[in-house]
Amino acid sequence: MVKRPLPLSKVHALLEPGPVVLLTTAHRGRVDVMTMSWHVPMEFEPPLVGCVVSDRDFSHGLLKASGECVINIPTKDLLDAVVGCGNTSGRDTDKFARFGLTPRPASMVGAPLIDECFANLECRVVDKRLAKAYCFLVLEVVKAWRDPAVKRPSTLHHEGSGTFMVAGERVVTRSRMP
Amino acid sequence: MVKRPLPLSKVHALLEPGPVVLLTTAHRGRVDVMTMSWHVPMEFEPPLVGCVVSDRDFSHGLLKASGECVINIPTKDLLDAVVGCGNTSGRDTDKFARFGLTPRPASMVGAPLIDECFANLECRVVDKRLAKAYCFLVLEVVKAWRDPAVKRPSTLHHEGSGTFMVAGERVVTRSRMP
Repeated sequence: MVKRPLPLSKVHALLEPGPVVLLTTAHRGRVDVMTMSWHVPMEFEPPLVGCVVSDRDFSHGLLKASGECVINIPTKDLLDAVVGCGNTSGRDTDKFARFGLTPRPASMVGAPLIDECFANLECRVVDKRLAKAYCFLVLEVVKAWRDPAVKRPSTLHHEGSGTFMVAGERVVTRSRMP
Repeated sequence: MVKRPLPLSKVHALLEPGPVVLLTTAHRGRVDVMTMSWHVPMEFEPPLVGCVVSDRDFSHGLLKASGECVINIPTKDLLDAVVGCGNTSGRDTDKFARFGLTPRPASMVGAPLIDECFANLECRVVDKRLAKAYCFLVLEVVKAWRDPAVKRPSTLHHEGSGTFMVAGERVVTRSRMP
């Protein structure tokens, strides 16, 4: 995909509708991809994002050690990779190879971008106060990328137990909410 | 709507797909409804939910004073109320009356349930450590209600600037993710 830089002020709108994302992390030659739904915008600009990464996940260690990650947003054509990455562990699986994902170098962090995802958000950990209690981290998005050709992405939204809702119709209102 | 108690273990699946919700609060005779998209599941059971309630919102004061709220989940037939509640203030508007919403008493908190919403989650504030920095609160869901007749809710998902995505098709996979 051909990505363009996305203004940081537009990042919250990518995450606010609640898509499943693929979180990439890297540290000392180890790389992982994790399926994640528990994330939330916390500030518009600079964009902050809160997320829960369980300490049972291999990604947890890489994220803790590196302090960096990339949030990659997939669409429904990547459903098999989304499910696969959520049901395997980076401890014994090269998920990029196994699920046909292509890593690309990020510009500001060590974790890779997933080429097949229409948007990629390079992040750094900025607040760990709730890490011990809930494995909750606050990330700052320092660089964002988007494929401008994907205008109405068919994002996936996990409803639990392996059921996903696919983004449907869009409705434009006169709301003044940002 | 006829609501039934929902097992607390199923609460995360209602919020994980990222629907816009209507947050109700009450304190000393004042009641408010706020449109909110910045929320995240943080634990399965007891269910914990993180959310951002700006200190510019009237609801912020009621939530801070009472330590309680209800997360109500609307569907697309309530789009006008969702937009309206997001663009008015409880300081000078009775949003229940203005947007045709019906308050019902909750069982464990003082804030009302919105009858027209297919699901209602009664919550108490349990962690305020990130309140000062980000207006971020951790809530525990202490009682949950759902209308069992609404099986595939047409939830609304805010994409920013007044554009909403409506929940589309469902896909069932063999994922072992909870």
